[in-house]
Amino acid sequence: MKLASFTVKGRESYGAVQGDKMVDLGQHFSGKHATLADFIGSSDFASRDKIIAGLKADLALNDVKLLPVIPRPEKIVCLVRNYMDHHQEVLAAGMHRELSEFPPIFLRVWRSQVAHGEPIIRPKVSEQLDWEGEMAVIIGKGGRHIAKEDAFNHIAGYACYNDASIREWQFHAKQIAAGKNFQGTGAFGPWMVTADEVPEPENLKLELRINGKTEQSSNTSNLIFKIPTIVNYCSTIFDLVPGDVLVTGTPAGVGWSRKPPQFMKHGDTVEVEIEKLGILRNPVVNEA
Amino acid sequence: MKLASFTVKGRESYGAVQGDKMVDLGQHFSGKHATLADFIGSSDFASRDKIIAGLKADLALNDVKLLPVIPRPEKIVCLVRNYMDHHQEVLAAGMHRELSEFPPIFLRVWRSQVAHGEPIIRPKVSEQLDWEGEMAVIIGKGGRHIAKEDAFNHIAGYACYNDASIREWQFHAKQIAAGKNFQGTGAFGPWMVTADEVPEPENLKLELRINGKTEQSSNTSNLIFKIPTIVNYCSTIFDLVPGDVLVTGTPAGVGWSRKPPQFMKHGDTVEVEIEKLGILRNPVVNEA
Repeated sequence: MKLASFTVKGRESYGAVQGDKMVDLGQHFSGKHATLADFIGSSDFASRDKIIAGLKADLALNDVKLLPVIPRPEKIVCLVRNYMDHHQEVLAAGMHRELSEFPPIFLRVWRSQVAHGEPIIRPKVSEQLDWEGEMAVIIGKGGRHIAKEDAFNHIAGYACYNDASIREWQFHAKQIAAGKNFQGTGAFGPWMVTADEVPEPENLKLELRINGKTEQSSNTSNLIFKIPTIVNYCSTIFDLVPGDVLVTGTPAGVGWSRKPPQFMKHGDTVEVEIEKLGILRNPVVNEA
Repeated sequence: MKLASFTVKGRESYGAVQGDKMVDLGQHFSGKHATLADFIGSSDFASRDKIIAGLKADLALNDVKLLPVIPRPEKIVCLVRNYMDHHQEVLAAGMHRELSEFPPIFLRVWRSQVAHGEPIIRPKVSEQLDWEGEMAVIIGKGGRHIAKEDAFNHIAGYACYNDASIREWQFHAKQIAAGKNFQGTGAFGPWMVTADEVPEPENLKLELRINGKTEQSSNTSNLIFKIPTIVNYCSTIFDLVPGDVLVTGTPAGVGWSRKPPQFMKHGDTVEVEIEKLGILRNPVVNEA
């Protein structure tokens, strides 16, 4: 099942995507589960097939404005250098880095996010807006100290993420959070696909294209720290809650590692496509 | 004016502290400003003296349970190595670090916070729970691209913060967010003091004590990146909103720089005292 957040006639809601239609779950659960994060954290989520079967898909997908899959996650935890092919490209670019014994993480704020179709913003202060196609893991059942063996029971679904990065600001101080949090840079969508429909999340083809040209092409099988390890590590630190998002890292092919470096510019279209999850497409525009 | 968030009889509220009494502003503004963040972002904040003068302090401070000053900030942006005396101690401890040209920042999640009086938790996975006394700056008026000259107009007030840190997890990967986000580590309180009562925020004595013994003793005049620079830098990245918290960094005297290193343990009491802002006091307990 594909689940998305959206607005329609100024009302925020969420629902299930069926072809070119949307079942308005937010309206159905009005007063009960206000957001998609609330719904996937509730016991109704387990009965979703039965619930949806009893509802009509009464909205046209064209008539809603998609929001980031989870518009306001309490936590967005992102992995650094978590694809073996990306690690090798970082070394080849002359940066001295050892493989980390533990998953290196940073945080992104929800307000930096944009939806499928919304522009990714190149800020005035930067000429180095880079792409990072990634798979996002969305927590359904919260908890702390989640064992690796139990990790997949806590995952509601998966989605495409573009962890677009302002490289000068990422590297001009020792911590990278600055370059990873600019307003209008974290693209998340178009929807999440529930975990039951993604039996092998660690074996999905992932591509990123700029204006139709493939710039990243890899597979989630190249993840260095696997999903159970990431969930276990994060839940040792954080009390995870429904709607928390773990962004698993990007493969080889980012722009700054090219010779010469290559970045996104006004007028570009960037797409992240992950097998089974769909295509996240965003135009790139200069900050007004 | 001292403003605090609290619960009373299970209801969350906020108010003005007057001696050992509390004026329940949350009740007064019920349906209008749900939280302290909403209040300090509203036009009523400017009229606070007149409003309070018309209200009775009807709660005893003893009868409320304080919450973190802002219980759920949208963003908690923390500065790394932002006191000259701390920078020098880091060098003396043998860590090679240059002064950063730009403010190094990381993010903390609100769920890691604890209130004045609540325990700071030493997690089972760590023997290195360290203290960091800091001054927090609380944003009242949001915005982006805030000029340095205008920065103080965006600040609602100041408070004590203890950015307690799990040192093994801070240093076991390149990014420090992991060690800075453990559940039960970010102490924030007991209240904020509004900016009108803190004419010189960059000239305040700051002390941290463990069981009454002074371990950090400095002055906010030692800040490397000053408040206007921090506000300008952060607002270049983030769209700041009322209730966002900028935690300005810690001075010399942290535990891990000692020879031998020294950490907090179960049964300790840690206090952060900042001139004009009050004393933030927390017991330390082992994770259950």
